[in-house]
Amino acid sequence: MKSLKLAVIGGGSSYTPELIEGIINRIDRLPVTRIDLVDVETGREKLEIVTGLAQRMVARSGLDIEVRHTLDRRDAIQGASFVMTQLRVGGLEARARDERIPLKHKVIGQETTGPGGFAKALRTIPVILDICKDMEELAPDAWLINFTNPAGMVTEAVSKYSSIKALGLCNVPINMHHQTAEALGASVDRVKVNFAGLNHLVWMSNIRLDGKDVTDKVIDMLCDGAHMNMNNIHESPWDPAFLQSLGVVPCPYHRYFYMQDEMLAEELESATSTGTRAEVVQKTEQELFKLYQNPELAEKPKQLEQRGGAYYSDVSLKLVDALYNDTSTINVVNTVNNGAISNLPDDAVVEISAVIDSSGAHPITQGALPDNQIALASSVKAYEQQAIEAAVKGDYGLALQALVANPLIPSAKVAKLILDDILEQNADYLPQFQ
Amino acid sequence: MKSLKLAVIGGGSSYTPELIEGIINRIDRLPVTRIDLVDVETGREKLEIVTGLAQRMVARSGLDIEVRHTLDRRDAIQGASFVMTQLRVGGLEARARDERIPLKHKVIGQETTGPGGFAKALRTIPVILDICKDMEELAPDAWLINFTNPAGMVTEAVSKYSSIKALGLCNVPINMHHQTAEALGASVDRVKVNFAGLNHLVWMSNIRLDGKDVTDKVIDMLCDGAHMNMNNIHESPWDPAFLQSLGVVPCPYHRYFYMQDEMLAEELESATSTGTRAEVVQKTEQELFKLYQNPELAEKPKQLEQRGGAYYSDVSLKLVDALYNDTSTINVVNTVNNGAISNLPDDAVVEISAVIDSSGAHPITQGALPDNQIALASSVKAYEQQAIEAAVKGDYGLALQALVANPLIPSAKVAKLILDDILEQNADYLPQFQ
Amino acid sequence: MKSLKLAVIGGGSSYTPELIEGIINRIDRLPVTRIDLVDVETGREKLEIVTGLAQRMVARSGLDIEVRHTLDRRDAIQGASFVMTQLRVGGLEARARDERIPLKHKVIGQETTGPGGFAKALRTIPVILDICKDMEELAPDAWLINFTNPAGMVTEAVSKYSSIKALGLCNVPINMHHQTAEALGASVDRVKVNFAGLNHLVWMSNIRLDGKDVTDKVIDMLCDGAHMNMNNIHESPWDPAFLQSLGVVPCPYHRYFYMQDEMLAEELESATSTGTRAEVVQKTEQELFKLYQNPELAEKPKQLEQRGGAYYSDVSLKLVDALYNDTSTINVVNTVNNGAISNLPDDAVVEISAVIDSSGAHPITQGALPDNQIALASSVKAYEQQAIEAAVKGDYGLALQALVANPLIPSAKVAKLILDDILEQNADYLPQFQ
Amino acid sequence: MKSLKLAVIGGGSSYTPELIEGIINRIDRLPVTRIDLVDVETGREKLEIVTGLAQRMVARSGLDIEVRHTLDRRDAIQGASFVMTQLRVGGLEARARDERIPLKHKVIGQETTGPGGFAKALRTIPVILDICKDMEELAPDAWLINFTNPAGMVTEAVSKYSSIKALGLCNVPINMHHQTAEALGASVDRVKVNFAGLNHLVWMSNIRLDGKDVTDKVIDMLCDGAHMNMNNIHESPWDPAFLQSLGVVPCPYHRYFYMQDEMLAEELESATSTGTRAEVVQKTEQELFKLYQNPELAEKPKQLEQRGGAYYSDVSLKLVDALYNDTSTINVVNTVNNGAISNLPDDAVVEISAVIDSSGAHPITQGALPDNQIALASSVKAYEQQAIEAAVKGDYGLALQALVANPLIPSAKVAKLILDDILEQNADYLPQFQ
Repeated sequence: MKSLKLAVIGGGSSYTPELIEGIINRIDRLPVTRIDLVDVETGREKLEIVTGLAQRMVARSGLDIEVRHTLDRRDAIQGASFVMTQLRVGGLEARARDERIPLKHKVIGQETTGPGGFAKALRTIPVILDICKDMEELAPDAWLINFTNPAGMVTEAVSKYSSIKALGLCNVPINMHHQTAEALGASVDRVKVNFAGLNHLVWMSNIRLDGKDVTDKVIDMLCDGAHMNMNNIHESPWDPAFLQSLGVVPCPYHRYFYMQDEMLAEELESATSTGTRAEVVQKTEQELFKLYQNPELAEKPKQLEQRGGAYYSDVSLKLVDALYNDTSTINVVNTVNNGAISNLPDDAVVEISAVIDSSGAHPITQGALPDNQIALASSVKAYEQQAIEAAVKGDYGLALQALVANPLIPSAKVAKLILDDILEQNADYLPQFQ
Repeated sequence: MKSLKLAVIGGGSSYTPELIEGIINRIDRLPVTRIDLVDVETGREKLEIVTGLAQRMVARSGLDIEVRHTLDRRDAIQGASFVMTQLRVGGLEARARDERIPLKHKVIGQETTGPGGFAKALRTIPVILDICKDMEELAPDAWLINFTNPAGMVTEAVSKYSSIKALGLCNVPINMHHQTAEALGASVDRVKVNFAGLNHLVWMSNIRLDGKDVTDKVIDMLCDGAHMNMNNIHESPWDPAFLQSLGVVPCPYHRYFYMQDEMLAEELESATSTGTRAEVVQKTEQELFKLYQNPELAEKPKQLEQRGGAYYSDVSLKLVDALYNDTSTINVVNTVNNGAISNLPDDAVVEISAVIDSSGAHPITQGALPDNQIALASSVKAYEQQAIEAAVKGDYGLALQALVANPLIPSAKVAKLILDDILEQNADYLPQFQ
Repeated sequence: MKSLKLAVIGGGSSYTPELIEGIINRIDRLPVTRIDLVDVETGREKLEIVTGLAQRMVARSGLDIEVRHTLDRRDAIQGASFVMTQLRVGGLEARARDERIPLKHKVIGQETTGPGGFAKALRTIPVILDICKDMEELAPDAWLINFTNPAGMVTEAVSKYSSIKALGLCNVPINMHHQTAEALGASVDRVKVNFAGLNHLVWMSNIRLDGKDVTDKVIDMLCDGAHMNMNNIHESPWDPAFLQSLGVVPCPYHRYFYMQDEMLAEELESATSTGTRAEVVQKTEQELFKLYQNPELAEKPKQLEQRGGAYYSDVSLKLVDALYNDTSTINVVNTVNNGAISNLPDDAVVEISAVIDSSGAHPITQGALPDNQIALASSVKAYEQQAIEAAVKGDYGLALQALVANPLIPSAKVAKLILDDILEQNADYLPQFQ
Repeated sequence: MKSLKLAVIGGGSSYTPELIEGIINRIDRLPVTRIDLVDVETGREKLEIVTGLAQRMVARSGLDIEVRHTLDRRDAIQGASFVMTQLRVGGLEARARDERIPLKHKVIGQETTGPGGFAKALRTIPVILDICKDMEELAPDAWLINFTNPAGMVTEAVSKYSSIKALGLCNVPINMHHQTAEALGASVDRVKVNFAGLNHLVWMSNIRLDGKDVTDKVIDMLCDGAHMNMNNIHESPWDPAFLQSLGVVPCPYHRYFYMQDEMLAEELESATSTGTRAEVVQKTEQELFKLYQNPELAEKPKQLEQRGGAYYSDVSLKLVDALYNDTSTINVVNTVNNGAISNLPDDAVVEISAVIDSSGAHPITQGALPDNQIALASSVKAYEQQAIEAAVKGDYGLALQALVANPLIPSAKVAKLILDDILEQNADYLPQFQ
């Protein structure tokens, strides 16, 4: 009799009920019998609340799945087939700082892109590599399914500094796919697309409806206002001349680069009015946990969907399904490039349509990204590769060069001011730089 | 109401009934309403016989498919969605020469590999490019599905010298897949494999049974005698030390390289006893056409399977299905490398597992072929690329260099002797060299 | 008896006396017997003035060199072994616009980098390609020695759209080399360096004094204030932490990227006080031509050196010498990459140390540029490649994408505003966009 | 006051007097004050004889150079700036076996190419890597100048498994250069050439006389009988049609591939008549050492030139000069490819024209080798890379795959027979395979 154990690190996240619901719905394909939700001491209360809700959900389903909470990561990893990481080092307080520091220097402040994502990478990569060390010892054949942002950089760090098999995930591509289908007035299974790029910098191309190419039509719709967006990104309309000559569909996060001036202006304005995104989310979270505490609640509450994690469990559990059941289906993952995009480094982790089977992810060959995509992708990837090295080695010079390479930063001087602020305000989380 | 027209060039082939049967069986997915079988004047009799059988098969099925025969290629191409090429320039007589000439110089004589395949390429590539010119004019959006050998070189010539969308096919991979499943005692859908290499030089790797890697097990079985073979290749057992250190499963045609001395000895022996393969096939063909002429026959006769074309229609019609219905299924095709195998040229046509959808074939990224595969693949590809240029340009020096590059030829002197024989004996079919 | 004819297109340039002096000094290695100075109708007066001075210089040298002026480009090209292009389409008035337009949109305004260089490329590339067409007809074996900016893009356009052998030149590398020697207190022949990058985006590395590596020492000196600059670039000191972690020496033009905010502030300030660089140069030029007119003057006047073209004739005539005399010396040129920098496209023109012999330039293999260089170089090259296509094809969408790819432009919206201004204000010089 | 110490490992070689003569002649550029000649116990007698001659040569020159002999390798390495390896593991007896074993199986028997060179690599690579370990400890900044064959593979092994800076040398290219000049009736300085390929598989191209391309002329001369040969290779004339379509000049060792059948026939014949090459050389060596013993002899004897090492000291000391004096001259060396030949692996050691300065060798960018060169070069390099791994790891399967990849071996079966013979007959020298 087959049985699967999952370990969810950062299990106290408000997204967990979505994952539990997904597992319950897929029990015929994934014989999960145990789920260990892990978190750190400072997240103990949330972890217990979420575990309670998860247990009630399972109980209502009548399935034989044991849900446990623990602060002992190694215990959770032991025996797991899949380790899912959805942790946030430093919590939303750190995210708020990630957003505020760049804005102070008139630079985009965002938790995954630009200096904000850089700070998050410095805090997060060492923690994930520690988890991988535990896995190498306790569950060397298990898969690491990483949802932790910046997901591309974190996954690349694991691919370079660990022997653990890892794939990174993001719900941006699936959202773009669904929104495209919606815009076309078609069910999502009639719409086929291709994704290639980097995490939070992925382009959608080769869009087909019932086998007919409709890429240009979708681009025209986007110019006319059909939106394609994430809850957490300010939506400015795309310029038609720009989008039509781009020839593919950018992801919502591309706005930070293609509309840098407008996005910055909007962020500066929000920061003084409604607060940064982290500050808004903190409030939403509090409300969610209040709901989760209700002992009568035994299902995922509707309000979770507004939190921004649409299709979160779909993405992760479809991937687990493909790996576990050797399905050879096509999912969009963060995985090692290996030549799939010929003008990015072979060892870079890219976000890309890939065939998933029990041996892992096999990217679909893309050839060279066109000039107008590679201009941005190559500089962002060079930034990422330096940031990963800086995070692992705690090297000031590498960190500075990484920031200078980031297209959102206007000069070495500003890069240095931001870096110094980041290192000072995150000192507790950056022992590698001591 | 949808309707599909197919043009089959070389329609008088003894394989055609297999194709017709396949179309009948897939009519729910492929709404074929017309099939034009085309051949040249010298093949008129066979064409008429085959067309007669095909019409009886369709009649028996009760389907509304018009099957016609014509010597007017352009008429057949007009309006076709798929043009399938299965022609043989010079017929089996030319093939017999392709096999005899090298043997005279103590070199492997084989219709697709070595100097035999080279001669066939010189004769065939200009004819296929002429067909493409007609398609560019009459059916520019149609797909060329090429079964004509050497399938990899022919497809590469089209990719380089025509704007027509083309994919090349071979039934070697599907046979290897099925035989592997058989050896494992499992149904073929439980067994997943990966293919990468060149046409008639493809390796099978990453073999999984129910999601578990069984590559080493399959290799051990092959060493123990589980065979994996084609009707038309002499089966010598693989050396265990060799196969285990190879680490992947070679295709039957690899024997011409890995067992060059034995295969040559066997060919020389056969040539004086039973005759070369072409000479054997000529007899089988005569028997088949005698059967086809029977006005009572309205189905594919069993004897066709011994001819060597197992899964022929499966391979081609699954591909047509994937292209027509935008299925995103994985087929093994000959298509432009585009970086999928990073240590072969980007513009080389390779034989590879690829995702097929309505926009074409998208190879699955393989990274670099290991040293023990690339040693052979790179020299054979360099041979092929020069042979293609020689075939298109009718250049003697290029042709000579191509043969010298072929690993089966021991010296420039032997290459020249063989080349001169080929040019002389094929003069009628090689106007480009006049 | 050997004799060499040079054609100088844009011969009316104020730099020409420098070139004439260089030819006179090298007559033992370069048997020049005729120099045709060519210009367009609007430059006729300057052309005549410069030709007069050149003739007086030659006369004083006692050499047998015929110096002629002509408005008939084809006549000058006929029989030439070297065609040197130093033209400026639209003159300094166009340059002033190139500098003013971006500043209006708060973007760096510079004649070779950013939108200014882009506008210059749009105007210049078609003219150079016309010259190449004349050369293909009249002097197909002659070398094109291109000094016209943006020199990298112009040379790449020639390599892609003409069969003429071309090399691009810039005096930035030789200046950096000389200034390094000066900073080290050594003669230039004791100091060896390596250059790799793009035109006006080249890095100097592997600096040796008497065979000992002094790269770090030179970097420290630069941080301490040893300057390395061009007359025409505002000199801000480099930040030590930045420069030391960069690990190589940037060129002066790198300031536009690494110090984007400061450079922009300085430009905006200058534009309202002293005027843009073009406006300053216009004055210097007028003074120079006043000097040139003096019939007593028969040598290069000292004042020319302040104009910014130091080592101009050294660079070009050393190159001509190497090509003509097959010297295999190492010069820094703009030439096709061909894999020398493995993480830039093979067909990109790069600025690089190369062995020069009579067969052309052979770049010294660099491997991959480090992450902190490639981040900038790859995006600038992607910008350049799109700009070249836009210049050749007159395609608005390509032009827009090119500008969006340029790291100096903050958004697609600003790119579009600048592009529209450029197209409008340069309409007379951009027939390809009509 | 500068002073240089050289360590010569395998100092008892008959070639050493050539090296000593070269050092004496270059003393103005290379201030050598001490030469340590090192050998193993079994070579003690020869070492003492050679050292005696060397000391008499130095004495006659009147220079202040101390020449010593020692069996203590570490003592010699200590303090050396250049360590020169010209050793032969197993001596000429082993070479004789390297030549005999393949011939037994009807395969080319040659000391550097094919299975003979493979056996030599297995014996030699571990010894050289041991030397490198000593250097890492005792002289980490010294250069290893490797003349030991197979020079390309040995140098690649060092580049992959040691931190020591190493360059490999061969006198084939300089001989080709000189013979070309001789054939053209010109002094060698008037003739410029380019080399690219692998050790003992290098092609000469872009041949210029006084700056004019004479490549085709030289090829025609070679077809007409102008020879280009090494003393130790049987000289068969090249076929004109082959050589002209090749378009470049092959090295003498190419005959083993391009004339495999003839060379094999000749070797088989020689082996039964005059003996293999090793057996012939053994006699020559004995005669040389008899001469060296003469206490009156104080110069390099004429007879040494017949031994096959023409220009041996020229090649090595020009390289030492370039490294020591930072000359930036172009030498042909075995060094890491690093993308110089874009269709060979980046980490492969290639034989190539390179700029040599005090920081090392910088190959001249070649782009992709043409199809007719890469066919051979890529398979030989794949053989080499597997052979190196086998030599380092003592892995039977890798060794077998290496031999199968070698184009001179007709089948896996023959590869296995040869491998088993090699391992058995070299057991004393192959501890890694025990």
